[in-house]
Amino acid sequence: MADATTTVGALKDAAGAFAAERRWEPFHTPKNLAMALACEVGELLEPFRWLTGEESLAACRDPATRAAVADEVADVFNLLMLFSLHSGIDVSDAVTAKLAKNAVKYPAKSD
Amino acid sequence: MADATTTVGALKDAAGAFAAERRWEPFHTPKNLAMALACEVGELLEPFRWLTGEESLAACRDPATRAAVADEVADVFNLLMLFSLHSGIDVSDAVTAKLAKNAVKYPAKSD
Amino acid sequence: MADATTTVGALKDAAGAFAAERRWEPFHTPKNLAMALACEVGELLEPFRWLTGEESLAACRDPATRAAVADEVADVFNLLMLFSLHSGIDVSDAVTAKLAKNAVKYPAKSD
Amino acid sequence: MADATTTVGALKDAAGAFAAERRWEPFHTPKNLAMALACEVGELLEPFRWLTGEESLAACRDPATRAAVADEVADVFNLLMLFSLHSGIDVSDAVTAKLAKNAVKYPAKSD
Repeated sequence: MADATTTVGALKDAAGAFAAERRWEPFHTPKNLAMALACEVGELLEPFRWLTGEESLAACRDPATRAAVADEVADVFNLLMLFSLHSGIDVSDAVTAKLAKNAVKYPAKSD
Repeated sequence: MADATTTVGALKDAAGAFAAERRWEPFHTPKNLAMALACEVGELLEPFRWLTGEESLAACRDPATRAAVADEVADVFNLLMLFSLHSGIDVSDAVTAKLAKNAVKYPAKSD
Repeated sequence: MADATTTVGALKDAAGAFAAERRWEPFHTPKNLAMALACEVGELLEPFRWLTGEESLAACRDPATRAAVADEVADVFNLLMLFSLHSGIDVSDAVTAKLAKNAVKYPAKSD
Repeated sequence: MADATTTVGALKDAAGAFAAERRWEPFHTPKNLAMALACEVGELLEPFRWLTGEESLAACRDPATRAAVADEVADVFNLLMLFSLHSGIDVSDAVTAKLAKNAVKYPAKSD
Protein backbone atom coordinates (compact mmCIF):
# COMPACT_ATOMS: atom_id res chain seq x y z
CA MET A 1 0.00 0.00 0.00
CA ALA A 2 1.89 3.02 -1.31
CA ASP A 3 -0.39 5.50 0.52
CA ALA A 4 1.33 4.57 3.79
CA THR A 5 4.68 5.91 2.62
CA THR A 6 3.93 8.42 -0.17
CA THR A 7 3.75 12.07 0.83
CA VAL A 8 1.21 14.47 -0.62
CA GLY A 9 4.16 16.62 -1.63
CA ALA A 10 5.66 13.82 -3.72
CA LEU A 11 2.40 13.42 -5.66
CA LYS A 12 2.08 17.19 -6.01
CA ASP A 13 5.60 17.37 -7.41
CA ALA A 14 4.91 14.49 -9.78
CA ALA A 15 1.77 16.20 -11.09
CA GLY A 16 3.62 19.48 -11.51
CA ALA A 17 6.60 17.89 -13.28
CA PHE A 18 4.33 15.96 -15.64
CA ALA A 19 2.59 19.17 -16.69
CA ALA A 20 5.84 21.15 -16.97
CA GLU A 21 7.40 18.54 -19.27
CA ARG A 22 4.42 18.98 -21.60
CA ARG A 23 4.39 22.81 -21.44
CA TRP A 24 0.87 22.75 -20.04
CA GLU A 25 1.57 25.35 -17.37
CA PRO A 26 0.16 28.36 -19.26
CA PHE A 27 -3.24 26.65 -19.12
CA HIS A 28 -3.04 25.87 -15.43
CA THR A 29 -4.80 28.81 -13.85
CA PRO A 30 -6.86 28.05 -10.74
CA LYS A 31 -10.01 28.68 -12.78
CA ASN A 32 -9.11 26.21 -15.54
CA LEU A 33 -7.90 23.60 -13.09
CA ALA A 34 -11.07 23.85 -10.99
CA MET A 35 -13.11 23.37 -14.16
CA ALA A 36 -10.99 20.39 -15.25
CA LEU A 37 -11.42 18.93 -11.76
CA ALA A 38 -15.21 19.14 -12.16
CA CYS A 39 -14.95 17.24 -15.47
CA GLU A 40 -12.98 14.44 -13.83
CA VAL A 41 -15.40 14.23 -10.92
CA GLY A 42 -18.20 13.82 -13.47
CA GLU A 43 -16.38 10.77 -14.82
CA LEU A 44 -15.91 9.38 -11.32
CA LEU A 45 -19.68 9.61 -10.70
CA GLU A 46 -20.60 7.90 -13.94
CA PRO A 47 -20.34 4.19 -12.97
CA PHE A 48 -22.38 4.80 -9.81
CA ARG A 49 -25.31 6.90 -10.99
CA TRP A 50 -27.82 4.06 -11.51
CA LEU A 51 -26.62 1.85 -8.64
CA THR A 52 -27.91 1.67 -5.08
CA GLY A 53 -25.43 2.36 -2.29
CA GLU A 54 -24.95 -1.37 -1.70
CA GLU A 55 -24.45 -2.05 -5.38
CA SER A 56 -21.83 0.70 -5.53
CA LEU A 57 -19.96 -1.04 -2.72
CA ALA A 58 -20.22 -4.40 -4.50
CA ALA A 59 -19.03 -2.79 -7.76
CA CYS A 60 -15.85 -1.58 -6.02
CA ARG A 61 -15.14 -5.13 -4.82
CA ASP A 62 -14.89 -6.28 -8.43
CA PRO A 63 -11.19 -5.92 -9.41
CA ALA A 64 -11.87 -4.72 -12.98
CA THR A 65 -14.39 -2.10 -11.87
CA ARG A 66 -12.16 -1.00 -9.01
CA ALA A 67 -9.24 -0.55 -11.42
CA ALA A 68 -11.40 1.60 -13.71
CA VAL A 69 -12.60 3.66 -10.75
CA ALA A 70 -9.01 3.98 -9.45
CA ASP A 71 -8.12 5.51 -12.81
CA GLU A 72 -10.73 8.21 -12.31
CA VAL A 73 -9.67 8.76 -8.69
CA ALA A 74 -6.15 9.33 -9.99
CA ASP A 75 -7.39 11.96 -12.45
CA VAL A 76 -9.33 13.77 -9.73
CA PHE A 77 -6.40 13.60 -7.34
CA ASN A 78 -3.92 14.87 -9.94
CA LEU A 79 -6.09 17.83 -10.79
CA LEU A 80 -6.49 18.63 -7.11
CA MET A 81 -2.69 18.52 -6.73
CA LEU A 82 -2.23 20.86 -9.71
CA PHE A 83 -4.90 23.18 -8.35
CA SER A 84 -3.17 23.28 -4.95
CA LEU A 85 0.20 23.84 -6.59
CA HIS A 86 -0.98 26.78 -8.67
CA SER A 87 -3.08 28.35 -5.94
CA GLY A 88 -0.35 28.07 -3.32
CA ILE A 89 -2.26 25.77 -0.98
CA ASP A 90 -0.69 23.24 1.35
CA VAL A 91 -3.26 20.47 1.29
CA SER A 92 -2.13 18.79 4.52
CA ASP A 93 -2.30 22.04 6.46
CA ALA A 94 -5.70 22.81 4.93
CA VAL A 95 -7.06 19.36 5.84
CA THR A 96 -5.75 19.54 9.41
CA ALA A 97 -7.28 22.98 9.90
CA LYS A 98 -10.59 21.91 8.38
CA LEU A 99 -10.87 18.75 10.50
CA ALA A 100 -10.26 20.85 13.61
CA LYS A 101 -12.98 23.27 12.52
CA ASN A 102 -15.37 20.41 11.71
CA ALA A 103 -14.67 18.75 15.06
CA VAL A 104 -16.26 21.78 16.73
CA LYS A 105 -19.15 21.90 14.25
CA TYR A 106 -19.88 18.18 14.49
CA PRO A 107 -18.90 16.91 17.98
CA ALA A 108 -17.89 13.22 18.16
CA LYS A 109 -20.45 10.77 19.53
CA SER A 110 -19.61 9.25 22.92
CA ASP A 111 -21.11 5.99 24.14
CA MET B 1 4.91 23.03 4.31
CA ALA B 2 3.22 19.96 5.77
CA ASP B 3 2.70 18.37 2.32
CA ALA B 4 6.43 17.55 2.21
CA THR B 5 6.16 15.21 5.19
CA THR B 6 2.51 14.13 5.42
CA THR B 7 1.62 10.82 3.80
CA VAL B 8 -1.59 10.28 1.87
CA GLY B 9 -2.24 7.37 4.24
CA ALA B 10 -2.10 9.66 7.28
CA LEU B 11 -4.76 11.95 5.78
CA LYS B 12 -6.84 8.95 4.72
CA ASP B 13 -6.69 7.59 8.26
CA ALA B 14 -7.60 10.98 9.70
CA ALA B 15 -10.63 11.27 7.40
CA GLY B 16 -11.70 7.73 8.28
CA ALA B 17 -11.29 8.23 12.02
CA PHE B 18 -13.21 11.51 11.95
CA ALA B 19 -16.15 9.80 10.25
CA ALA B 20 -16.00 6.73 12.51
CA GLU B 21 -16.09 8.87 15.66
CA ARG B 22 -19.33 10.42 14.37
CA ARG B 23 -20.90 7.12 13.28
CA TRP B 24 -21.12 8.37 9.70
CA GLU B 25 -19.84 5.13 8.18
CA PRO B 26 -23.24 3.67 7.26
CA PHE B 27 -23.69 6.61 4.89
CA HIS B 28 -20.29 6.23 3.30
CA THR B 29 -20.99 4.08 0.28
CA PRO B 30 -18.93 4.84 -2.83
CA LYS B 31 -22.08 6.25 -4.46
CA ASN B 32 -22.86 8.66 -1.64
CA LEU B 33 -19.24 9.74 -1.27
CA ALA B 34 -18.89 10.39 -5.01
CA MET B 35 -22.02 12.52 -4.85
CA ALA B 36 -20.76 14.42 -1.80
CA LEU B 37 -17.46 14.96 -3.60
CA ALA B 38 -19.34 16.57 -6.51
CA CYS B 39 -21.06 18.94 -4.07
CA GLU B 40 -17.74 20.03 -2.59
CA VAL B 41 -16.22 20.54 -6.03
CA GLY B 42 -19.17 22.80 -6.85
CA GLU B 43 -18.21 24.95 -3.86
CA LEU B 44 -14.59 25.03 -4.97
CA LEU B 45 -15.63 26.34 -8.41
CA GLU B 46 -17.83 29.06 -7.00
CA PRO B 47 -15.30 31.87 -6.34
CA PHE B 48 -13.80 31.44 -9.83
CA ARG B 49 -16.81 31.24 -12.12
CA TRP B 50 -16.94 34.92 -13.13
CA LEU B 51 -13.17 35.56 -13.10
CA THR B 52 -10.72 35.36 -15.98
CA GLY B 53 -7.82 32.93 -15.63
CA GLU B 54 -5.50 35.75 -14.59
CA GLU B 55 -7.97 37.07 -12.06
CA SER B 56 -8.31 33.60 -10.57
CA LEU B 57 -4.55 33.52 -10.10
CA ALA B 58 -4.58 36.96 -8.49
CA ALA B 59 -7.47 35.91 -6.23
CA CYS B 60 -5.39 33.02 -4.89
CA ARG B 61 -2.57 35.41 -4.02
CA ASP B 62 -4.87 37.23 -1.61
CA PRO B 63 -4.41 35.53 1.80
CA ALA B 64 -8.09 35.74 2.82
CA THR B 65 -9.33 34.32 -0.49
CA ARG B 66 -6.65 31.65 -0.47
CA ALA B 67 -7.67 30.60 3.04
CA ALA B 68 -11.31 30.30 1.95
CA VAL B 69 -10.29 28.31 -1.12
CA ALA B 70 -8.02 26.10 1.01
CA ASP B 71 -11.07 25.27 3.11
CA GLU B 72 -12.87 23.99 0.02
CA VAL B 73 -9.78 22.10 -1.16
CA ALA B 74 -9.72 20.37 2.23
CA ASP B 75 -13.36 19.31 1.83
CA VAL B 76 -12.73 17.92 -1.65
CA PHE B 77 -9.58 16.14 -0.47
CA ASN B 78 -11.30 14.63 2.56
CA LEU B 79 -14.14 13.28 0.46
CA LEU B 80 -11.66 11.81 -2.01
CA MET B 81 -9.86 10.12 0.90
CA LEU B 82 -13.12 8.67 2.24
CA PHE B 83 -14.08 7.53 -1.24
CA SER B 84 -10.71 5.80 -1.66
CA LEU B 85 -10.98 4.24 1.78
CA HIS B 86 -14.42 2.78 1.15
CA SER B 87 -13.74 1.66 -2.39
CA GLY B 88 -10.43 0.00 -1.47
CA ILE B 89 -8.27 2.23 -3.67
CA ASP B 90 -4.64 3.07 -2.96
CA VAL B 91 -4.45 6.62 -4.29
CA SER B 92 -0.66 6.72 -4.64
CA ASP B 93 -0.61 3.51 -6.65
CA ALA B 94 -3.49 4.75 -8.80
CA VAL B 95 -1.74 8.07 -9.47
CA THR B 96 1.58 6.41 -10.34
CA ALA B 97 -0.15 4.01 -12.73
CA LYS B 98 -2.17 6.80 -14.34
CA LEU B 99 0.83 9.07 -14.85
CA ALA B 100 2.66 6.19 -16.56
CA LYS B 101 -0.35 5.62 -18.82
CA ASN B 102 -0.67 9.35 -19.57
CA ALA B 103 3.06 9.59 -20.34
CA VAL B 104 2.45 7.25 -23.29
CA LYS B 105 -0.72 9.08 -24.36
CA TYR B 106 0.88 12.53 -24.11
CA PRO B 107 4.63 12.28 -24.82
CA ALA B 108 6.78 14.97 -23.16
CA LYS B 109 8.00 17.85 -25.33
CA SER B 110 11.71 17.89 -26.09
CA ASP B 111 13.55 21.03 -27.13
CA MET C 1 -48.95 23.62 -14.27
CA ALA C 2 -47.13 26.38 -16.12
CA ASP C 3 -44.84 23.93 -17.93
CA ALA C 4 -47.78 22.94 -20.17
CA THR C 5 -48.02 26.44 -21.65
CA THR C 6 -44.61 28.08 -21.15
CA THR C 7 -42.19 27.89 -24.07
CA VAL C 8 -38.48 27.30 -23.63
CA GLY C 9 -37.99 30.52 -25.58
CA ALA C 10 -39.99 32.52 -23.05
CA LEU C 11 -37.80 31.28 -20.19
CA LYS C 12 -34.66 31.86 -22.26
CA ASP C 13 -35.78 35.43 -22.93
CA ALA C 14 -36.58 35.97 -19.26
CA ALA C 15 -33.14 34.73 -18.19
CA GLY C 16 -31.47 36.92 -20.81
CA ALA C 17 -33.48 40.02 -19.88
CA PHE C 18 -32.76 39.54 -16.18
CA ALA C 19 -29.02 39.42 -16.85
CA ALA C 20 -29.13 42.36 -19.29
CA GLU C 21 -30.93 44.59 -16.76
CA ARG C 22 -28.08 43.93 -14.32
CA ARG C 23 -25.28 44.43 -16.87
CA TRP C 24 -24.07 40.88 -16.27
CA GLU C 25 -23.59 40.10 -19.97
CA PRO C 26 -19.82 40.75 -20.10
CA PHE C 27 -19.40 37.86 -17.68
CA HIS C 28 -21.61 35.51 -19.64
CA THR C 29 -19.15 33.66 -21.83
CA PRO C 30 -19.94 29.98 -22.50
CA LYS C 31 -17.00 29.05 -20.27
CA ASN C 32 -18.17 31.08 -17.29
CA LEU C 33 -21.77 29.98 -17.69
CA ALA C 34 -20.81 26.30 -17.89
CA MET C 35 -18.80 26.74 -14.71
CA ALA C 36 -21.68 28.54 -12.95
CA LEU C 37 -23.98 25.73 -14.09
CA ALA C 38 -21.71 23.19 -12.40
CA CYS C 39 -21.89 25.19 -9.15
CA GLU C 40 -25.68 25.18 -9.21
CA VAL C 41 -25.80 21.45 -9.95
CA GLY C 42 -23.60 20.92 -6.89
CA GLU C 43 -26.27 22.66 -4.81
CA LEU C 44 -28.99 20.53 -6.37
CA LEU C 45 -27.14 17.35 -5.37
CA GLU C 46 -26.61 18.46 -1.80
CA PRO C 47 -29.91 17.43 -0.15
CA PHE C 48 -29.70 13.96 -1.74
CA ARG C 49 -26.13 12.87 -1.12
CA TRP C 50 -26.74 10.87 2.06
CA LEU C 51 -30.21 9.55 1.16
CA THR C 52 -31.14 6.28 -0.49
CA GLY C 53 -33.05 6.45 -3.77
CA GLU C 54 -36.34 5.82 -1.96
CA GLU C 55 -35.59 8.44 0.66
CA SER C 56 -34.82 10.95 -2.10
CA LEU C 57 -38.25 10.27 -3.57
CA ALA C 58 -39.89 10.66 -0.17
CA ALA C 59 -37.98 13.90 0.42
CA CYS C 60 -39.43 15.37 -2.77
CA ARG C 61 -42.95 14.55 -1.59
CA ASP C 62 -42.45 16.87 1.38
CA PRO C 63 -43.69 20.34 0.27
CA ALA C 64 -40.96 22.31 2.08
CA THR C 65 -38.15 20.13 0.73
CA ARG C 66 -39.67 20.16 -2.75
CA ALA C 67 -39.85 23.97 -2.68
CA ALA C 68 -36.17 24.17 -1.70
CA VAL C 69 -35.24 21.70 -4.44
CA ALA C 70 -37.37 23.61 -6.97
CA ASP C 71 -35.31 26.69 -6.14
CA GLU C 72 -32.14 24.84 -7.12
CA VAL C 73 -33.78 23.41 -10.25
CA ALA C 74 -34.64 26.99 -11.25
CA ASP C 75 -31.01 28.06 -10.83
CA VAL C 76 -29.76 25.16 -12.94
CA PHE C 77 -32.41 25.81 -15.59
CA ASN C 78 -31.66 29.53 -15.74
CA LEU C 79 -27.96 28.91 -16.21
CA LEU C 80 -28.70 26.38 -18.93
CA MET C 81 -30.89 28.97 -20.67
CA LEU C 82 -28.15 31.61 -20.45
CA PHE C 83 -25.60 29.13 -21.71
CA SER C 84 -27.83 28.25 -24.68
CA LEU C 85 -28.48 31.91 -25.38
CA HIS C 86 -24.81 32.84 -25.44
CA SER C 87 -23.66 29.78 -27.34
CA GLY C 88 -26.38 30.10 -29.98
CA ILE C 89 -28.07 26.80 -29.22
CA ASP C 90 -31.75 26.07 -29.76
CA VAL C 91 -32.46 23.72 -26.86
CA SER C 92 -35.65 22.22 -28.34
CA ASP C 93 -33.93 21.38 -31.62
CA ALA C 94 -30.96 19.94 -29.71
CA VAL C 95 -33.22 17.78 -27.52
CA THR C 96 -35.24 16.51 -30.49
CA ALA C 97 -32.07 15.61 -32.39
CA LYS C 98 -30.53 13.91 -29.36
CA LEU C 99 -33.63 11.84 -28.58
CA ALA C 100 -33.67 10.64 -32.21
CA LYS C 101 -30.00 9.69 -31.93
CA ASN C 102 -30.57 7.96 -28.57
CA ALA C 103 -33.57 6.05 -29.98
CA VAL C 104 -31.17 4.30 -32.33
CA LYS C 105 -28.56 3.73 -29.63
CA TYR C 106 -31.08 2.42 -27.08
CA PRO C 107 -33.97 0.72 -28.91
CA ALA C 108 -37.31 0.75 -27.05
CA LYS C 109 -38.37 -2.46 -25.32
CA SER C 110 -41.32 -4.26 -26.85
CA ASP C 111 -43.46 -6.75 -24.95
CA MET D 1 -36.01 28.30 -33.81
CA ALA D 2 -38.06 25.61 -32.10
CA ASP D 3 -37.55 27.17 -28.65
CA ALA D 4 -40.05 29.90 -29.59
CA THR D 5 -42.90 27.41 -29.90
CA THR D 6 -41.91 24.35 -27.84
CA THR D 7 -43.25 24.19 -24.29
CA VAL D 8 -41.20 22.92 -21.38
CA GLY D 9 -44.02 20.45 -20.78
CA ALA D 10 -43.64 18.98 -24.27
CA LEU D 11 -39.94 18.32 -23.68
CA LYS D 12 -40.66 16.97 -20.20
CA ASP D 13 -43.22 14.57 -21.67
CA ALA D 14 -40.81 13.52 -24.42
CA ALA D 15 -38.08 12.78 -21.87
CA GLY D 16 -40.52 10.83 -19.71
CA ALA D 17 -41.93 8.81 -22.62
CA PHE D 18 -38.45 7.96 -23.88
CA ALA D 19 -37.49 6.57 -20.48
CA ALA D 20 -40.79 4.72 -20.03
CA GLU D 21 -40.46 2.98 -23.40
CA ARG D 22 -37.09 1.62 -22.23
CA ARG D 23 -38.29 0.61 -18.73
CA TRP D 24 -35.75 2.96 -17.15
CA GLU D 25 -38.21 4.35 -14.61
CA PRO D 26 -37.16 2.15 -11.67
CA PHE D 27 -33.74 3.84 -11.85
CA HIS D 28 -35.13 7.34 -11.98
CA THR D 29 -35.13 8.41 -8.36
CA PRO D 30 -34.34 12.06 -7.70
CA LYS D 31 -30.99 10.98 -6.24
CA ASN D 32 -29.94 8.98 -9.30
CA LEU D 33 -31.16 11.64 -11.72
CA ALA D 34 -29.31 14.41 -9.87
CA MET D 35 -26.15 12.31 -10.04
CA ALA D 36 -26.65 11.60 -13.76
CA LEU D 37 -27.21 15.32 -14.30
CA ALA D 38 -23.84 16.05 -12.69
CA CYS D 39 -22.17 13.57 -15.07
CA GLU D 40 -23.68 15.29 -18.09
CA VAL D 41 -22.66 18.72 -16.83
CA GLY D 42 -19.10 17.41 -16.53
CA GLU D 43 -19.23 16.56 -20.23
CA LEU D 44 -20.58 20.00 -21.08
CA LEU D 45 -17.65 21.64 -19.26
CA GLU D 46 -15.05 19.53 -21.02
CA PRO D 47 -14.52 21.46 -24.29
CA PHE D 48 -14.19 24.74 -22.38
CA ARG D 49 -11.82 23.92 -19.54
CA TRP D 50 -8.59 25.08 -21.19
CA LEU D 51 -10.08 27.99 -23.17
CA THR D 52 -10.31 31.65 -22.22
CA GLY D 53 -13.77 33.18 -22.09
CA GLU D 54 -13.29 34.73 -25.53
CA GLU D 55 -12.07 31.47 -26.99
CA SER D 56 -15.11 29.69 -25.56
CA LEU D 57 -17.31 32.20 -27.38
CA ALA D 58 -15.38 31.70 -30.62
CA ALA D 59 -15.61 27.91 -30.21
CA CYS D 60 -19.41 28.14 -30.07
CA ARG D 61 -19.44 30.09 -33.34
CA ASP D 62 -17.89 27.12 -35.10
CA PRO D 63 -20.80 25.00 -36.40
CA ALA D 64 -19.17 21.61 -35.68
CA THR D 65 -18.21 22.57 -32.11
CA ARG D 66 -21.63 24.14 -31.52
CA ALA D 67 -23.33 20.94 -32.68
CA ALA D 68 -21.21 18.87 -30.29
CA VAL D 69 -21.95 21.28 -27.45
CA ALA D 70 -25.68 21.26 -28.33
CA ASP D 71 -25.60 17.49 -27.89
CA GLU D 72 -24.34 17.92 -24.34
CA VAL D 73 -26.86 20.67 -23.63
CA ALA D 74 -29.57 18.26 -24.75
CA ASP D 75 -28.33 15.62 -22.31
CA VAL D 76 -28.26 18.10 -19.43
CA PHE D 77 -31.70 19.41 -20.33
CA ASN D 78 -33.20 15.93 -20.60
CA LEU D 79 -31.88 14.92 -17.22
CA LEU D 80 -33.23 18.12 -15.71
CA MET D 81 -36.64 17.34 -17.24
CA LEU D 82 -36.58 13.79 -15.83
CA PHE D 83 -35.50 15.11 -12.45
CA SER D 84 -38.37 17.63 -12.44
CA LEU D 85 -40.82 14.97 -13.56
CA HIS D 86 -39.87 12.55 -10.81
CA SER D 87 -39.60 15.15 -8.08
CA GLY D 88 -42.93 16.78 -8.97
CA ILE D 89 -41.49 20.17 -9.88
CA ASP D 90 -43.01 22.57 -12.38
CA VAL D 91 -39.91 24.15 -13.86
CA SER D 92 -41.66 27.23 -15.26
CA ASP D 93 -43.26 28.04 -11.93
CA ALA D 94 -39.94 27.46 -10.16
CA VAL D 95 -38.08 29.75 -12.58
CA THR D 96 -40.68 32.51 -12.32
CA ALA D 97 -40.59 32.35 -8.51
CA LYS D 98 -36.79 32.33 -8.44
CA LEU D 99 -36.43 35.29 -10.81
CA ALA D 100 -38.82 37.27 -8.60
CA LYS D 101 -36.76 36.38 -5.54
CA ASN D 102 -33.50 37.24 -7.31
CA ALA D 103 -34.93 40.57 -8.52
CA VAL D 104 -35.14 41.62 -4.85
CA LYS D 105 -31.67 40.24 -4.04
CA TYR D 106 -30.02 41.83 -7.07
CA PRO D 107 -31.86 45.06 -8.01
CA ALA D 108 -31.68 46.03 -11.70
CA LYS D 109 -29.27 48.81 -12.65
CA SER D 110 -30.83 52.08 -13.77
CA ASP D 111 -28.99 54.66 -15.88
